[in-house]
Amino acid sequence: MGYSDLDWKAINTVRLLAVDATLKANSGHPGAPMGLAPAAHVLWNKFMTFNPKNPLFINRDRFVLSNGHACMLQYALLHLFGYGVSMDDLKHFRQIDSITPGHPETHDTPGIEVTTGPLGQGFANSVGLAIAQAHTAAVFNKPGYELINNYTYCIFGDGCAMEGIASEAASTAGHLQLGNLICLYDDNHISIDGDTKCAFTEDVSKRFEAYGWHVQHVKDGDHDLAAIEEAIAKAKEVKDKPSMIKVTTTIGFGSKLQGTGGVHGNPLKADDAKQVKAKFGFNPEESFVVPQEVYDLYHKHAAEGAAAEEAWNSLFKKYSSEYKELADELTRRLSRKLPEGWEKKLPVYKPTDPAEASRKLSEKVLEDIHEAIPELLSGSADLTGSNNTRWKNAVDFQPPSLGIGDWSGRYLRYGVREHGMAGIMNGISAYGTLIPAGGTFLNFVSYAAGSVRLSALSHQRVIYIATHDSIGLGEDGPTHQPIETLAHFRALPNIMVWRPADGNETSAAYYMALTSTSTPSILALTRQNLPQLENSTIEKAIKGGYVAYEVENADVTLVSTGSEVGLCIESVKELKDKHGITARVVSMPCTEVFDAQPKEYQLQVLPDGIPAMSVEVMSTLGWEKYSHEQFGLNRFGASGPYKDVYKKFEFTPEGISKRAKATVEFYKGLKPRSPVNRAFQQLI
Amino acid sequence: MGYSDLDWKAINTVRLLAVDATLKANSGHPGAPMGLAPAAHVLWNKFMTFNPKNPLFINRDRFVLSNGHACMLQYALLHLFGYGVSMDDLKHFRQIDSITPGHPETHDTPGIEVTTGPLGQGFANSVGLAIAQAHTAAVFNKPGYELINNYTYCIFGDGCAMEGIASEAASTAGHLQLGNLICLYDDNHISIDGDTKCAFTEDVSKRFEAYGWHVQHVKDGDHDLAAIEEAIAKAKEVKDKPSMIKVTTTIGFGSKLQGTGGVHGNPLKADDAKQVKAKFGFNPEESFVVPQEVYDLYHKHAAEGAAAEEAWNSLFKKYSSEYKELADELTRRLSRKLPEGWEKKLPVYKPTDPAEASRKLSEKVLEDIHEAIPELLSGSADLTGSNNTRWKNAVDFQPPSLGIGDWSGRYLRYGVREHGMAGIMNGISAYGTLIPAGGTFLNFVSYAAGSVRLSALSHQRVIYIATHDSIGLGEDGPTHQPIETLAHFRALPNIMVWRPADGNETSAAYYMALTSTSTPSILALTRQNLPQLENSTIEKAIKGGYVAYEVENADVTLVSTGSEVGLCIESVKELKDKHGITARVVSMPCTEVFDAQPKEYQLQVLPDGIPAMSVEVMSTLGWEKYSHEQFGLNRFGASGPYKDVYKKFEFTPEGISKRAKATVEFYKGLKPRSPVNRAFQQLI
Repeated sequence: MGYSDLDWKAINTVRLLAVDATLKANSGHPGAPMGLAPAAHVLWNKFMTFNPKNPLFINRDRFVLSNGHACMLQYALLHLFGYGVSMDDLKHFRQIDSITPGHPETHDTPGIEVTTGPLGQGFANSVGLAIAQAHTAAVFNKPGYELINNYTYCIFGDGCAMEGIASEAASTAGHLQLGNLICLYDDNHISIDGDTKCAFTEDVSKRFEAYGWHVQHVKDGDHDLAAIEEAIAKAKEVKDKPSMIKVTTTIGFGSKLQGTGGVHGNPLKADDAKQVKAKFGFNPEESFVVPQEVYDLYHKHAAEGAAAEEAWNSLFKKYSSEYKELADELTRRLSRKLPEGWEKKLPVYKPTDPAEASRKLSEKVLEDIHEAIPELLSGSADLTGSNNTRWKNAVDFQPPSLGIGDWSGRYLRYGVREHGMAGIMNGISAYGTLIPAGGTFLNFVSYAAGSVRLSALSHQRVIYIATHDSIGLGEDGPTHQPIETLAHFRALPNIMVWRPADGNETSAAYYMALTSTSTPSILALTRQNLPQLENSTIEKAIKGGYVAYEVENADVTLVSTGSEVGLCIESVKELKDKHGITARVVSMPCTEVFDAQPKEYQLQVLPDGIPAMSVEVMSTLGWEKYSHEQFGLNRFGASGPYKDVYKKFEFTPEGISKRAKATVEFYKGLKPRSPVNRAFQQLI
Repeated sequence: MGYSDLDWKAINTVRLLAVDATLKANSGHPGAPMGLAPAAHVLWNKFMTFNPKNPLFINRDRFVLSNGHACMLQYALLHLFGYGVSMDDLKHFRQIDSITPGHPETHDTPGIEVTTGPLGQGFANSVGLAIAQAHTAAVFNKPGYELINNYTYCIFGDGCAMEGIASEAASTAGHLQLGNLICLYDDNHISIDGDTKCAFTEDVSKRFEAYGWHVQHVKDGDHDLAAIEEAIAKAKEVKDKPSMIKVTTTIGFGSKLQGTGGVHGNPLKADDAKQVKAKFGFNPEESFVVPQEVYDLYHKHAAEGAAAEEAWNSLFKKYSSEYKELADELTRRLSRKLPEGWEKKLPVYKPTDPAEASRKLSEKVLEDIHEAIPELLSGSADLTGSNNTRWKNAVDFQPPSLGIGDWSGRYLRYGVREHGMAGIMNGISAYGTLIPAGGTFLNFVSYAAGSVRLSALSHQRVIYIATHDSIGLGEDGPTHQPIETLAHFRALPNIMVWRPADGNETSAAYYMALTSTSTPSILALTRQNLPQLENSTIEKAIKGGYVAYEVENADVTLVSTGSEVGLCIESVKELKDKHGITARVVSMPCTEVFDAQPKEYQLQVLPDGIPAMSVEVMSTLGWEKYSHEQFGLNRFGASGPYKDVYKKFEFTPEGISKRAKATVEFYKGLKPRSPVNRAFQQLI
């Protein structure tokens, strides 16, 4: 093994960059970087293959810092190894518009694989990265061509270990026997409330063993570099289990406050910083110092990574001649472009086609497109038969030893683990060769809210197949009936919430979800049957909103989504016959996409002078943006057959007409402006 | 022990009621009740103390069915033991407005302790019930007066075991050494996707041992009643650890499809139901049959429970003379009424008082009221120093053996477990003697969304202390800055979202949160300092919205919350001086409470004829309800010092004024109607 003073100089350089950057920012977390620097040094410099000049080299080892608040560790390493993170960037740690924000964000900073900070997320992402690796290897590797054999390394702390999402992901990884995943647990006994003994006294190693992991313990992670190396080497040899290495460290190693909560989330005091520098043999009066030999050491390893990529490129060239189709396919996937002509496979419906639940329409889409889009990886959080997420001849992604699938399988059984599923999907998407789609009931997408937020923030093309989307699910009752859920996710930036009304709209939702490479989607789908609309087409629906029923001189516009669009169209006749009111109907399957249309188009859909009333069987919150009056459900639902539930809450042609009439009367003579007219634009 | 045919007749009666009710509803889950009936029979009839005639007897044993979809098990038992659940109610299982909805709801049905169904929630609730029991016992029991010594029993299934919230709660319970908690794990190897071997192969027993639980295994839960009894008896003897008893059962026991997924979520086929009845010695042609001797058996146990309550009442009478104050206190708590005059302790501020962060103002409230309200139990998900949730002389709720607190402690260290914390708080609230308040960052209340929803649905008085409520948290950056969060929870029925602007509003928020006995609250609080407003008072703020700055002939109303109210008031001068525009300012700390005010009041606050512009530094979604134009942040934030972040997004007097001016121009001459004028009322 042989570690020298130079290794310690490098380790201390990393530590002091964390000290200096947090001190300069007067904000941030020096403690974890100081404790983790030895383990990170061994991991990055002895084991990880990567090329800082091309952070996206496909077969690079992935590194995830799940305790993202320790990001100065990662920023320092990225800088020292020669990624596009300059010393100046380190000096702008936690400053506006820097590439070194308070927690690592993948789209900001070269070398950051996933966006972490919200605890437990990175851990789940790393399980997703490892799944994607195993699948990609199974699909593309050939004898003599081990194109894809990277490892995923993750560092996580006590906070991550406490989070339920990490438990879910760890159980999943153990089940899946992911030998390509190695996680280092920073066992430093400190969280924000102080000693972990105040809340966290479980046996973490035993817990991971229970999940089916290979577990080791490095007792002196502060000094014993050889033990760290030995443990990682051993973990790499374990091919049929993910590995957890508990590394006992001292938070804030070197600080006068080392081993205490005082060094967790606050910069060191100036005099403490000085004494640490002196202790480590650095000039206490200088800051942001990197000895040239440390750069040299790390650049040497970076050069080995560049050479590895070159060797890979040569191998891939040979592969390309022998397996041209596969090589082209891999290249295409990495470009994030879908195969030419795939969209012709999308099902198209005529008004005379039978009524269908949109969860079934979604199943039909998956059935029809899965061959054309081989990077689509479907799955469900234990609701396969309810979410209709599995195409008929799907193979499960499973460790072959279980006899119920294999690594090339494209259907993932996530178990009853919604949050874990979402965090894993973010990791799968981040790998670069797959598009994950995962199912649960819309109501339980809320369990995954922490990860859905990160799908959006980190620009992952992840598809949430969210069935049983309203009180229309019926008997399961209020505990399962979403009221607030669509408002929640419509308020989240960079995510599309689709609630299609029929077959063509469902196809449109998939079209947009699959072609939007940096935006996740939630598809809210019904359990109950929906008629095929007269005027729907994929082309209209991909505008997010369109006129589903037009009429001259309308008194009112009904703006609606999903299962209520058909009801609105039924109401048109009722309104005319019983009340002499002329109504037009707008279907608005995705407000976010409608918002992106030119204003002229928006005004065709929601014209000036006609009052608009929204009709959606859940919270009205947000519908004021697209309508003057709102008919919705601002209370919890009820358990019963769905038609009875709809009736109870007056979601019937009569109930809609009554309110539309009130709307027309309320705006009589007022010729209201279209709600799309605004005094000023929002910042984006 | 001695089990007879009568026991099996009772067990089979329970099974067949589940068969019949799901068959009649043509919906529901017969499998788990059929598999669990033996364990439930032993638990209810041999161990549990309860009085069906007074389901709220304080020292009753609590029962939680965490796999709530199995609720026909619970409804059948409630009926058979003589609770207010009639045979007719069973026949209306899953029908509109019945008291036997698709999943158990506490406020609907006598004998249901907590609302379950969303998996994992009940398990976490049971930990909360056990915590509340331990605390209440420590406070009220005296030598010779063991007033409070009930157990909490929970049944959970594979789905619950997979959910992260259950992992979090189990780790917490193990840490807290809750010997009063006994959980039966229905190990039936089946979830919706079929055999659990497709996704869930971990060693659950070992995992619970790792958490510090006492673990046993009943290998034949279908037949071995003696083993079930023995295990529960042994678990009761273990006083320093919670107990988990893995009970291996056959789902749908007796059905032709027993042991398969086919019997999980669908009624039995008619012929299968008949053969089960025949197999169990019942008439295959009859439904909803209860042999009189089964009623007799269970009513006998119920009578023992009634006698136990009577004995308790006698004991309490003696206790009342010896410990009058404590007895009165317990009686008062159970009435859910706060102590007389507590509200006089709420801090009141003058405009000249110094600026303070609302998280600090919240700390001051807790400091000032905690002695007056002894049922207030505070805590934090490992952010004590950031959430400011701990009063100075607080004692931690901890097992005494750890030496860092005791059972009478009123501060709970939840660890980094937001979802677990929320589920536990729901259980604490459900016990009836405590009001739980728990802290985390507002952004991470989203991790707990599943439980927050149930706080609201099940009418729990739970307080979420949600600090770091916006981009104003600064350097931690977009991963920690809420954008969608307030819209999310404002769309949720029966919850108050408070975002106070200063000290008086913070006191008002606590006043409403504490006095609303069946509504939870989220208090969104700042990290940064806020000035004390000129016109705020507790009395005004408890109306949800009020005029913070009034002026005659205003051109525009600025409607705002929290940290932006002060900014709006600063903007008034800017608007007047630079643009000649007269602005008034409305502070709207809680829209839900404002909605409940008389319309005349609402129109005073948001009058006709004046355009209103909302100002809140997060998603504008929903603000259209209270304003004509909206200034917000419909994108993710940025990492940097908070003043820089506010400036970047133009949340400055200049940025506000620019948009207010655009609003005034847009509505020039239009005299718009107040947004509180609506064409029709929403259903409630």
